Amino acid sequence: MTAKVGINGYGTVGKRVADAVSQQDDMELVGVAKRSPTYEAEMAVEKGYPFYASSDKYLDGFEEKDIPVEGMLDDLLERADIIIDGTPKKSGYKPRYEKAGVKAIWQGGEDHELTGLSFNSMANYEEAYGADYVRVVSCNTTGLLRTLYPLYRDIGIDNSKAVMIRRGADPWDTSRGPINSINPVLDIPSHHGPDVKSVEPGIDIQTTAVKVPTTIMHLHSNIVELEEEKSTQEIIDMWEETPRVKFFDASQGVDSTAKIMEFARDRSNPRGDLNEIAVWKDAIKVEGSTLYYYQAIHQESDIVPENIDAIRAMTELEEDNMKSIKRTNNAMGIE
Amino acid sequence: MTAKVGINGYGTVGKRVADAVSQQDDMELVGVAKRSPTYEAEMAVEKGYPFYASSDKYLDGFEEKDIPVEGMLDDLLERADIIIDGTPKKSGYKPRYEKAGVKAIWQGGEDHELTGLSFNSMANYEEAYGADYVRVVSCNTTGLLRTLYPLYRDIGIDNSKAVMIRRGADPWDTSRGPINSINPVLDIPSHHGPDVKSVEPGIDIQTTAVKVPTTIMHLHSNIVELEEEKSTQEIIDMWEETPRVKFFDASQGVDSTAKIMEFARDRSNPRGDLNEIAVWKDAIKVEGSTLYYYQAIHQESDIVPENIDAIRAMTELEEDNMKSIKRTNNAMGIE
Amino acid sequence: MTAKVGINGYGTVGKRVADAVSQQDDMELVGVAKRSPTYEAEMAVEKGYPFYASSDKYLDGFEEKDIPVEGMLDDLLERADIIIDGTPKKSGYKPRYEKAGVKAIWQGGEDHELTGLSFNSMANYEEAYGADYVRVVSCNTTGLLRTLYPLYRDIGIDNSKAVMIRRGADPWDTSRGPINSINPVLDIPSHHGPDVKSVEPGIDIQTTAVKVPTTIMHLHSNIVELEEEKSTQEIIDMWEETPRVKFFDASQGVDSTAKIMEFARDRSNPRGDLNEIAVWKDAIKVEGSTLYYYQAIHQESDIVPENIDAIRAMTELEEDNMKSIKRTNNAMGIE
Amino acid sequence: MTAKVGINGYGTVGKRVADAVSQQDDMELVGVAKRSPTYEAEMAVEKGYPFYASSDKYLDGFEEKDIPVEGMLDDLLERADIIIDGTPKKSGYKPRYEKAGVKAIWQGGEDHELTGLSFNSMANYEEAYGADYVRVVSCNTTGLLRTLYPLYRDIGIDNSKAVMIRRGADPWDTSRGPINSINPVLDIPSHHGPDVKSVEPGIDIQTTAVKVPTTIMHLHSNIVELEEEKSTQEIIDMWEETPRVKFFDASQGVDSTAKIMEFARDRSNPRGDLNEIAVWKDAIKVEGSTLYYYQAIHQESDIVPENIDAIRAMTELEEDNMKSIKRTNNAMGIE
Repeated sequence: MTAKVGINGYGTVGKRVADAVSQQDDMELVGVAKRSPTYEAEMAVEKGYPFYASSDKYLDGFEEKDIPVEGMLDDLLERADIIIDGTPKKSGYKPRYEKAGVKAIWQGGEDHELTGLSFNSMANYEEAYGADYVRVVSCNTTGLLRTLYPLYRDIGIDNSKAVMIRRGADPWDTSRGPINSINPVLDIPSHHGPDVKSVEPGIDIQTTAVKVPTTIMHLHSNIVELEEEKSTQEIIDMWEETPRVKFFDASQGVDSTAKIMEFARDRSNPRGDLNEIAVWKDAIKVEGSTLYYYQAIHQESDIVPENIDAIRAMTELEEDNMKSIKRTNNAMGIE
Repeated sequence: MTAKVGINGYGTVGKRVADAVSQQDDMELVGVAKRSPTYEAEMAVEKGYPFYASSDKYLDGFEEKDIPVEGMLDDLLERADIIIDGTPKKSGYKPRYEKAGVKAIWQGGEDHELTGLSFNSMANYEEAYGADYVRVVSCNTTGLLRTLYPLYRDIGIDNSKAVMIRRGADPWDTSRGPINSINPVLDIPSHHGPDVKSVEPGIDIQTTAVKVPTTIMHLHSNIVELEEEKSTQEIIDMWEETPRVKFFDASQGVDSTAKIMEFARDRSNPRGDLNEIAVWKDAIKVEGSTLYYYQAIHQESDIVPENIDAIRAMTELEEDNMKSIKRTNNAMGIE
Repeated sequence: MTAKVGINGYGTVGKRVADAVSQQDDMELVGVAKRSPTYEAEMAVEKGYPFYASSDKYLDGFEEKDIPVEGMLDDLLERADIIIDGTPKKSGYKPRYEKAGVKAIWQGGEDHELTGLSFNSMANYEEAYGADYVRVVSCNTTGLLRTLYPLYRDIGIDNSKAVMIRRGADPWDTSRGPINSINPVLDIPSHHGPDVKSVEPGIDIQTTAVKVPTTIMHLHSNIVELEEEKSTQEIIDMWEETPRVKFFDASQGVDSTAKIMEFARDRSNPRGDLNEIAVWKDAIKVEGSTLYYYQAIHQESDIVPENIDAIRAMTELEEDNMKSIKRTNNAMGIE
Repeated sequence: MTAKVGINGYGTVGKRVADAVSQQDDMELVGVAKRSPTYEAEMAVEKGYPFYASSDKYLDGFEEKDIPVEGMLDDLLERADIIIDGTPKKSGYKPRYEKAGVKAIWQGGEDHELTGLSFNSMANYEEAYGADYVRVVSCNTTGLLRTLYPLYRDIGIDNSKAVMIRRGADPWDTSRGPINSINPVLDIPSHHGPDVKSVEPGIDIQTTAVKVPTTIMHLHSNIVELEEEKSTQEIIDMWEETPRVKFFDASQGVDSTAKIMEFARDRSNPRGDLNEIAVWKDAIKVEGSTLYYYQAIHQESDIVPENIDAIRAMTELEEDNMKSIKRTNNAMGIE
């Protein structure tokens, strides 16, 4: 049995999940839907993805550019078991998915309430098993859960704080700033703490956030009060075993978000992405029961494997989260 | 006799022209009008500028913040001989100014057609003498005219080309990008050439433009084919005599737009502005009749003295442009 | 009695302290010493500051540019009671100051050990009274002490954490990056915590730090565990009374470091500086005994008034720190 | 017959040429030499490239990190027919290559005089046939030649001007700025014009250049006076036939250097590189005999295929440049 997957919205998330679905041998990409005839549409066709128009507004444009359109979004909804919604936040497609009787996954731009089920592969895969509607949490929240959840599960977290230094815009987004400023999120604590709790309510966390003039990666400076004292080596050993957490080391010359991205390019990662959360191994420090560490989040791609796992859970292809994670990782070349 | 000047729109241009008007002994600042109760409103009041609300939408806000409001925009229009319009482009206030019978000056964001008269102090002051409606051309066009007009008048220009490397956003504008990109203006030639001709049709010029991730100054790389051969020294001598053109020199350590802005801060210029056009003296080069030079434009402030001269021309305070320029410059500390 | 003050090194710190000394009526600026004939040297002369050459290497250059040199550094040392050392860190001038029998103040780039006395006006003014050698701590450490010291003194600090998002380079420094990266300081905790303790050992603090692509202001995201519960209003009231701490408010439109700098330009601050520490009032939050707040530090100028107070203490012009602070602030226009 | 190729210096150029050599079926990568044990060294080993130490200074480091070293640089020189020198400019390895009797290719950081032969595949392949020492010109000069050479050959160039807006640092280089400045190259004209002539002396060109805060791509704004009038379509047709020139179109959503790089990522180009020169098709404009166009240059990778062609010419694998270009392009997936 395979899951028939459709993609609605072929932008930052949509195009990456489309590629990842194609790499899974228990999934079939039945089509991608997009509004306008940009080069991304041409590329989808070049890759052999069945192409659907999500609006009739630009149909002429597709014709002009010789982009063959298989049908409209509603046609895609009929052919799919499950839809990945990669449209801009609050696009409001839920009623159409409900009407078509198709399962759907949204991204972290939506509120928890849209689905009532916020997802992370390690933390609550089993809750999504068989579910109709799931929200994969944002890149930052996914990043926090990847490193915090194993601490919470294996050691216990008394309290954790994270300061999130966020990139101002994605690399292609040349209209957004700031160019020369640090913009704090003045609502304190920021929404990321509650977002972690939407997946695992047991994790005590407060966060603050600032926006800075870079297009590559968010960086988190984290402090965790553990329930018991641990050595730095024990923490390292634990994360060594944790999927989708990858260590970097300044002694290898990797001392910035830019160098991590260069590493990803050198490793021939598709699009130079990094699906793993980057943790600087030489900057992990434990003093008593206080753990300090930095992690960097590739905002464009860390949530892609979680989408794949969510598909597998919701379509009941696999009951065991660790088996799904392993299968996804192997197919995508993730460590 | 003094001219009663009102300011509508108290942003980048408005607040600077307000200060400059206050410095002139033949002008009276009768008030500034602003929409919303930001700190700039408080500062206008602190400076003793009569404050008017340009909309009743935020009147409660002004009250909450104890910002005393002298009246509404229409009250200001009645008290002024001439209005400086510093509102966002295409705000459409012209009918209200006409109705109030007040003269008005717009900025370079508007089309030439709005007034039929585009202004530069050196090039066409006399055309504005007694005029009702004038457009002061944009910062970039003003910058081009400052250096090109004397070349045109004294030597003759066969043809000129300018490539404009533009700042992406003003320093305070933290929402606009790009963060990491060069964005070319794909309409070739760009609108700046025709804009120069809206003031002086005799200058042959073609321009291209790109936007880059900086908040400080535009930079122009210019090439001019002169009608006769001149030495580099003759060009230097000519600009040495030209008002509002200021030489900088890499041998003084001033080799970038950032260093020019640091110079302006060190010179105690208000707001660290530079009303003059900066020309790198050691990069002026003539080969035969071809002149190469770079100039840098402080986008926030170069047009301020032109606004003052335009007021003087339109209100018939002074017939001679050189006398007005000198008076403005002396009052503002411009070289 | 007045203190005769000399400045060695006329860069970011030196030129600002020179201006501030000139503004004090109990101090006399006997001269500034500089190595090379840049425009800053010309400006010092224009301002009427007696000018000394700190090296004979560039004496020809000063002559070429008609910069009148009053003497060499050693001449200045003889004429001064106290020297502000604004030279690059580890320049090693101490033996020369000792030999000349002149008191000296260094900046935060030096180690505590150089003087054995690290200074902050609020925290330990009395220790510097009559001292020969004092280090004014760095801009970031000064910023931390400005807000933490009153919390420590009046309420008690159980523990504090700060994440410092640092600007990559000063505005004029066009050779340093990063352009598009976040660079974490991988030594955890960073040196800023111990630096706070070099002034007030009683303050428990751990810090981490990252460098980002901006030239304006550091921003700190701080979390303080207080020894007792306080309301947000009590914290606000306390800082309202604290010198050199200034509140900003997003409702005034000041929601980024760029907007704070725009405010400083609008307020006609010299060089657009902000000597005060900026705290976002609407982002101060207390939950139980946990205090969250953001502060922004103008790295070029916050330590200038501390230098002035240190002069006053060391030369025994004033015994009471609050009187010195008030006098400095009044002369410099600081709130 | 195959050419045995060694790489000395495994940085931006070296690692890319190593990959490109591996993709050619008439070349054998006999090894790469590198100084220090960074992650790039580990990756070279993972890729199966025979690894050599270029200095004995870091041999312990290689051992510590389990990086197997096949030998020292001199061993590599013995095994290779030709060396690609990707070391920092002016590293001075020529005497060692001469002593080892190995041919060598340097990059554009070196002066023309080092080899007396500056290379571009289209312009002067035949001059490099059998040569011992060749310099592949810089990324910017290669970019200029790619579009200018066919104009020169087919139509004739009366005169050309280029303004080069250059990226400040490569993506991984987080120490270099500027962060918020435009830095002009104050030597006018810049060295790029003479560099074009070092390959094809017949092309009349003057250039100016500025450095801006971006890490991705240089952009050139070019104006060419052609020897005869041509239509825009004729120019487009000519470049359509020119290898390694690729059109982009704003109507596809590709209106900035950032969008071009996103395209390259989406096309699954290795490392997200773009070996072709990007020309905006909709911004090509001819007025009479004056041609305007913008091109963007991927500074890290455009010279890679030229290195491959130079190997083929120097080792006499292929006499015909168009055949070599085609072979290189097919192997590398270049259009």
